This record gives sequence, structure tokens and C-alpha cells, in this order.
Amino acid sequence: MVCLFFFLLQAIPFGKIPILEVDGVTIHQSLAIARYLARESGLAGQTPVEQALADAIVDTIDDFMTLFPWAEKNQDVRKRAFDDILTNKAPELLKDLDTFLGDNNWLVGKSVTWADFYWDVCSTTLLSCKPDLADNYPRLLALRDRVQALPAIAAWIQKRPKTIM
Amino acid sequence: MVCLFFFLLQAIPFGKIPILEVDGVTIHQSLAIARYLARESGLAGQTPVEQALADAIVDTIDDFMTLFPWAEKNQDVRKRAFDDILTNKAPELLKDLDTFLGDNNWLVGKSVTWADFYWDVCSTTLLSCKPDLADNYPRLLALRDRVQALPAIAAWIQKRPKTIM
Ligand SMILES: [Mg+2]
Ligand SMILES: [Mg+2]
Repeated sequence: MVCLFFFLLQAIPFGKIPILEVDGVTIHQSLAIARYLARESGLAGQTPVEQALADAIVDTIDDFMTLFPWAEKNQDVRKRAFDDILTNKAPELLKDLDTFLGDNNWLVGKSVTWADFYWDVCSTTLLSCKPDLADNYPRLLALRDRVQALPAIAAWIQKRPKTIM
Repeated sequence: MVCLFFFLLQAIPFGKIPILEVDGVTIHQSLAIARYLARESGLAGQTPVEQALADAIVDTIDDFMTLFPWAEKNQDVRKRAFDDILTNKAPELLKDLDTFLGDNNWLVGKSVTWADFYWDVCSTTLLSCKPDLADNYPRLLALRDRVQALPAIAAWIQKRPKTIM
């Protein structure tokens, strides 16, 4: 089973999942895949500048998520690093995101983009680690609510498998 | 001077450079800016799938470049980390990139994209750290030559300021 898994990974360009196959072409890198799907479904931003802003927000959130030592096996080391990032580094990100959002309904432009989705997904993970993380940022929490109230998202949340961190 | 610099950074969304201003809108995040400029100049890929592949290659190279402790001040620690990454981690990236390029002229599609530019820029930095790094990958070195032979790039290389690492 493990052998088969490594065999499959070797058959994948760059040997990492996730991948997406489109017309026989294999696309790798999760954000490249997500951006492709967002563009195909009209969720990447309505203009080139909006698309660039959505890209920038996604990369900003992704840079933050990358700080965490997800693969760290030593639970003490892991917990200390997570606490440090959530306590000392998260506030700056949240403040900047909140300023960027302002009183708009969506992070970029006048309709939902994949940047809002990415905020919803990543903040769900962050809040599962520190439930009071965004208490000072009601506008960012309200944005989560707006995303999760979109009919297709609400339906998916109902039926998706539960992930336990 | 330093005060002015921090004042300027505070006026920038997310407080980091580079930024690009387009019609009064400030775009942050270097790769979001580069992708925007690539799209505006027809260098982002000819189809949505090609654009996704270029994005994926750029993120793969960027993930690798991010491994290096660029800001490390202790020269011993820095040198050890750089040597380790260049010796032990670079070969996998180069092998995968070489396989992906194959015998094609460009990484994605039938014409140059910003993925080729990114390989050229990043490999220039890597080769300045370890000149024999890509000796086993003549196709990747030939790709650098093709990028640098493009008239606009050749002209820029002539006139750009020299950066000493
Ligand atoms: Mg980055
Ligand atoms: Mg990534």
C-alpha cells in the first residue's frame, strides 16, 4: 500500500499532491489549482487588477499559514510554535486584513472571490486552534458568515467529512 | 530617513514591499504583481491550463527559494543552512524541473512565459551561491541562455545595476 502510494507520487510531476487533471494535463501546486478553478468559475476577480488583488490576499494568508510547523512531531515544540504564532504574529495579519476589507462585503471588488473562500478556510483552521483569535475583528468574522451562508457553501459544509485537527 | 521609511511602510497595505500601483489601486505581494504584469504583456500562458501550469512552476520554484534563511544574521548558521539546501534539496527540484521541461524550448507551452523568467532569475541567484549546481542539467542551463538571449532581456541585463550577494 505504501509502495503503491510512492509509486503513484513518482508518476506525478513534482511528486506532491494535490494535483488536478484537465484534458490529460496534470496541474500541481494547490494555489495554482485553486486559481485555475476560481477563474473557470468566475470567482477570480472581475478585472485584471481585482484578480491581482485576490492573488495578493491569498498569498498573504498563505505566507502566514506556512509559518506553522505543520509537520513537527514533537508535541511540545509544536504547541510552543503554534502559540507563539497565534499570539504574536496573527494580530498583525488580522489587523491588515481587517483594514483591507474595511466596510466592504467582500475582500476584493463587489462580489465574492476565491480570496474570501481562502480566508474562510484558513480562519476555520486558525479558530480551531485559538477560538478567540478574531474576537477583535468582527468584520472579518462577519465575512466568514457571509461566505458560509452562500447556498453552495452552506450545502457543502453540511455534507463534507469532518476533519479533526 | 528610517522614520520616513517606516512611515511609508505603514501607509502601504500589509506593510511590505514590493508594491505596484495601477490606476490608484495598490497591489502587494511580489508574485501577484509579477503575474499581473505577465498577463498584461501576454507572458502568463496562452490558455487557462497553460496559465495554471506557469503558476504551478513559479510556486514550486518559490517554495524552494523560501527554504533559504535569507534574513539569518549568523554567518555560520546561514552558510550551513545554504549548503544543506543547495546540496541536499536542490537536486530534487532540478530533476523535477528538468523532467517537466523535457526537450521543449520553454517550460510551459510553445512560447516564453513568466515561469521561464522566474527560473532564470532564481537560478541566477542559486548559481551565484553554487556555480556547479545545474551542471547535470544542461537543458535547464540552455533554457537560461534562451531567456537571456531574448532581445529585451539581453538589453536589460546589459544596463541593470549589479547586485552583489
Ligand atoms: Mg511569497
Ligand atoms: Mg504553497
